[in-house]
Amino acid sequence: MRDVAVIGIGMNKWGEIWKSSIRDLFVEAALAAIADAGVDHLDAMYVGCMSSGIFVGQEHLGALMADYLGQVPIPATRVESACASGGVAFRQAFIEVASGLSDIVLAGGVEKMTDTDGGSATYALSTAADQEYECFHGVTFPGLYAMMARAHMAKHGTTREQLAEVAVKNHYHGSMNPLAQFPQEITVQGVLESILVADPLRILDCSPITDGAAAVIVSTPEIAKRLGRGPVIRVTGSGQASDTIALHSRADMSWLRSTEVAATAAYQMAATGPEGIDFVEVHDCFTIAEIMVLEALGLYAPGGGGPATSRGETRLGGKRPVNTSGGLKAKGHPVGATGIAQIYELVTQLRGAAGSRQVTGARRGLAQNMGGTGASSTVHILEVE
Amino acid sequence: MRDVAVIGIGMNKWGEIWKSSIRDLFVEAALAAIADAGVDHLDAMYVGCMSSGIFVGQEHLGALMADYLGQVPIPATRVESACASGGVAFRQAFIEVASGLSDIVLAGGVEKMTDTDGGSATYALSTAADQEYECFHGVTFPGLYAMMARAHMAKHGTTREQLAEVAVKNHYHGSMNPLAQFPQEITVQGVLESILVADPLRILDCSPITDGAAAVIVSTPEIAKRLGRGPVIRVTGSGQASDTIALHSRADMSWLRSTEVAATAAYQMAATGPEGIDFVEVHDCFTIAEIMVLEALGLYAPGGGGPATSRGETRLGGKRPVNTSGGLKAKGHPVGATGIAQIYELVTQLRGAAGSRQVTGARRGLAQNMGGTGASSTVHILEVE
Repeated sequence: MRDVAVIGIGMNKWGEIWKSSIRDLFVEAALAAIADAGVDHLDAMYVGCMSSGIFVGQEHLGALMADYLGQVPIPATRVESACASGGVAFRQAFIEVASGLSDIVLAGGVEKMTDTDGGSATYALSTAADQEYECFHGVTFPGLYAMMARAHMAKHGTTREQLAEVAVKNHYHGSMNPLAQFPQEITVQGVLESILVADPLRILDCSPITDGAAAVIVSTPEIAKRLGRGPVIRVTGSGQASDTIALHSRADMSWLRSTEVAATAAYQMAATGPEGIDFVEVHDCFTIAEIMVLEALGLYAPGGGGPATSRGETRLGGKRPVNTSGGLKAKGHPVGATGIAQIYELVTQLRGAAGSRQVTGARRGLAQNMGGTGASSTVHILEVE
Repeated sequence: MRDVAVIGIGMNKWGEIWKSSIRDLFVEAALAAIADAGVDHLDAMYVGCMSSGIFVGQEHLGALMADYLGQVPIPATRVESACASGGVAFRQAFIEVASGLSDIVLAGGVEKMTDTDGGSATYALSTAADQEYECFHGVTFPGLYAMMARAHMAKHGTTREQLAEVAVKNHYHGSMNPLAQFPQEITVQGVLESILVADPLRILDCSPITDGAAAVIVSTPEIAKRLGRGPVIRVTGSGQASDTIALHSRADMSWLRSTEVAATAAYQMAATGPEGIDFVEVHDCFTIAEIMVLEALGLYAPGGGGPATSRGETRLGGKRPVNTSGGLKAKGHPVGATGIAQIYELVTQLRGAAGSRQVTGARRGLAQNMGGTGASSTVHILEVE
């Protein structure tokens, strides 16, 4: 397999965007990535999107976006793994460049979740769970993650306050990200007093419904050097794994096996381990998810994620900052775009271009993206030369 | 890139299947492919599916199918390019094996189109077109292909009878395929007298609504030899291309540019050309499509597809048989599965296992799969050693 690098990134301001359609959102981010890379063509493209069929009545996003991006007739494929759709889009681009088939591949992600006509966002999102055995009984994602939170609290003593501290930290980080949907700081007391959604999770434990897109250009280190736009940022590790689609099928609801397996593969490929990672972006769709992911990545022992958050180790300036972008919680969570936006943040940090939220000495970052209650996970490791 | 081979195939009897859910359909075909290959594990899997979100309220098919196939925690990704979803799933498996990342990858396709609760199949299928500019005005796929047919008739003199002859041939072939949904022979007069759907297309010009799945195992020639189950069947060419999502954006509605570009790439990779192909499976979603595809593949000059059909050159026993499986027309068209079922037919023919529909001297076959009105195309070339 050939070495792979990320040579360009693009993203728009996320939020509730009434004046842009799904194609507008994607093309804006993709054009920014192409301009950032300074390339004059693409060999192929991947579009990560979870549920545009339900949200906006449009499948076939690969061809649609190639068309509106002016890239016909290149190969263009949409990939979907629920909220990990962006992560798998990036992985497919990585594999295609690594294979030698293509030299310059765009990996983008998009979701248009507001102003839709295909039913509620909660219904669309529920299609990431087991339709026949979970959704049929009325379970939605806040309920599923609430059960995971209760299991984690029962097994490890994770506290309600620790959950809140995840949200507070991510909103603090998000307050320094001009592209974040909710760049407002919040307090632990504010989280604890916010509306209860699914006990113990309150509204400020939950990532929002968001419109947005992100895109990156995947290529080789040689092409990166030839283009000469800043440091070469290599993709040194890529892992992906699955778990049971239904939460009730798992031996331990407080453990994310797919993240563990994907991380193990990514660490092995990158010839490193948790100790070698300077900063991470993780899939904090709910506050409990960030804590569980930190443990599954091996950054903390089982049960260690909550206390580490309380100690400030995951905050900017701490031992290993987590979600400097604001995470899904503050940056927003247009589900198909999230995994790509994580790569956007990693590259921004590795370039030393993150401004007030810059991680000092950021040399190697990790991004973890997840679908459903963890039935899909991707883990990628990026390093600056 | 490494050499790639197909080492196993599986498929179920297609039709209106009331007693199997989408997961049942997929798992049945996938288990058959795994058994046929004789492998004891998979490294990864791809699921081609167009619109399970709308059809059955279930996205996240990669993880779901890995789970029900007993393959957790392998990487499992759903890919979608409308009716070319199967073709792109196969291509992703091809790229992953060619890259060296994985040795044994399942590529499957599935669609559950009947007994659904998400609106009509016609609505779901329309999401392959341009939602904002085509569907908004009420166009559906029979209407779009009818316009393509009229354009082709006007430019090349293609006749109503030639369209009928495509359907008659494919039902003749399908009558010899025990897995086909409609294995009944039909007549030209029967087609011409069938109900008008969108002038000039009648119901017997249209592929049906179908439940079904198909799966293949993609690996290396070395592993194929080690397993020792029959001849080694190599994937020597893979091409994919896009075109404008909307029909009205094209300079020539009678020409399938994405198929032309994908075929050019596949021919180049396989170091062959149209003259080197013994038999083909093409995307005859409507009778006019088969004629246009034969021309875009370079098998006939523009306008030559209809007359060649009339001369019987595309019939079993003719110069170069087309759609010996029965094609989408007679075999059925569960949209996400179609591209994989084409590979199933190619392998069956290359093994010499096609029974009464066997193509004599079949050494090199080509499969062309298409999404929308040709906004996506894949072309694959398979050869027996």
